[in-house]
Amino acid sequence: MPRYKLTIEYDGGGFVGWQRTDTGPSVQSALEAAVLAFSGETLEVTGAGRTDSGVHALGQVAHVDFSKQQRPDTVRDALNAHLVPHPIAVIDAREVGDDFHARFSAIARTYLYRITDRRPPLTLTRGQVWRIPVQLDVDAMHAAAQSLVGPHDFTTFRDARCQAKSPEKTLDVLDVSRAGAEIHIWTKARSFLHRQVRSMAGSLVEVGRGKWQVRDMARALAARDRTECGPVAPADGLCLMRVDY
Amino acid sequence: MPRYKLTIEYDGGGFVGWQRTDTGPSVQSALEAAVLAFSGETLEVTGAGRTDSGVHALGQVAHVDFSKQQRPDTVRDALNAHLVPHPIAVIDAREVGDDFHARFSAIARTYLYRITDRRPPLTLTRGQVWRIPVQLDVDAMHAAAQSLVGPHDFTTFRDARCQAKSPEKTLDVLDVSRAGAEIHIWTKARSFLHRQVRSMAGSLVEVGRGKWQVRDMARALAARDRTECGPVAPADGLCLMRVDY
Repeated sequence: MPRYKLTIEYDGGGFVGWQRTDTGPSVQSALEAAVLAFSGETLEVTGAGRTDSGVHALGQVAHVDFSKQQRPDTVRDALNAHLVPHPIAVIDAREVGDDFHARFSAIARTYLYRITDRRPPLTLTRGQVWRIPVQLDVDAMHAAAQSLVGPHDFTTFRDARCQAKSPEKTLDVLDVSRAGAEIHIWTKARSFLHRQVRSMAGSLVEVGRGKWQVRDMARALAARDRTECGPVAPADGLCLMRVDY
Repeated sequence: MPRYKLTIEYDGGGFVGWQRTDTGPSVQSALEAAVLAFSGETLEVTGAGRTDSGVHALGQVAHVDFSKQQRPDTVRDALNAHLVPHPIAVIDAREVGDDFHARFSAIARTYLYRITDRRPPLTLTRGQVWRIPVQLDVDAMHAAAQSLVGPHDFTTFRDARCQAKSPEKTLDVLDVSRAGAEIHIWTKARSFLHRQVRSMAGSLVEVGRGKWQVRDMARALAARDRTECGPVAPADGLCLMRVDY
């Protein structure tokens, strides 16, 4: 059973999320339908990260086991042909050993959260950026973010439905900076809790608006209490940028 | 009649172009409907550039004369409220003298043409970038572009329906460079002929593919013959970035 590693892009706007469910179209089910159309086989496509409804990806990774060896470029092109008209693209396919697992072999995941602090509505980036109609203090956001870096109990920044056994994670990067007309929050960790990035982004925006002081971020973290989290940021602005192995 | 200068963004994908016509929804008619809803007046919104169907803008400029003085921020916010759900936004409004004319006072227009030379389909930038599935020689494209800079007869790069009296224009900038995963063509001139940017972009891609030599661009220009133009690039990749006064 040769295994293939797929690197995948998608606009998550029209999907219920990565994971196959019976509540609506998922990215995983669209990929599995393309795999079936290409190979004639009903196979599971296993993803590195279960992105939520509306969350995008430029570097999601998944693996799939075909029963026959295939040319990697053929896998990429055939899946893309069968994915039409979904806004999903396989940007790379390569054969890997059967010890590679898209989810469990990952050593880091990098997300970008995009914000714009302007009053006019969005046009070309609609659905891909969180618009906040007041100017944000980006320096304060970055300073507050640093109190979350490192190994912590992230109970405050974890969705009530999170199924992880432990609320402890190690955050490697949480950087906030202006990038042209946008504010970008880059974050990297081995793995994240459910809605952790959007919970952190929403809390950072409270700092940016001046509703929270910089020190309130450390206090919220230390509280280990979900009710201390700021409003969770919308899915629109979030994008899974890369997975490292 | 106080005059207001509006700076406007739009996703041109769903419009027949800037100009009001009876063939479908235009950006101008959407703005004029918002002006009517706000002021109760049927007024013309005069744009700097008549972008074609599917062409985008991040810096279109227009003017409108209200019968009563208005706070500029009120003009901006009220028009945006009435523009919902169109992907059109007024990003700036300011009062100007009645000698200001969005089209005739403009001294320069800057366009960006976005290309990506990758094989997989587009996802998040679908409709905003021209995808060409083979690698392009960007250095050759930039070199060829330089033969179009300056004052020239652009008959070769002018649509047959162009209504300008003269085919002579002065091109100030035509730069081609890689920008991350994209190739960007930036161009600036006092004004352009109909479909001139897309005609130049399409011809530059012929150079990038290796179908044209660098010197073929100067030859096509010198021919002053529309049939010597490369295939016209699609509207998707084109965006009016700014208008200078």
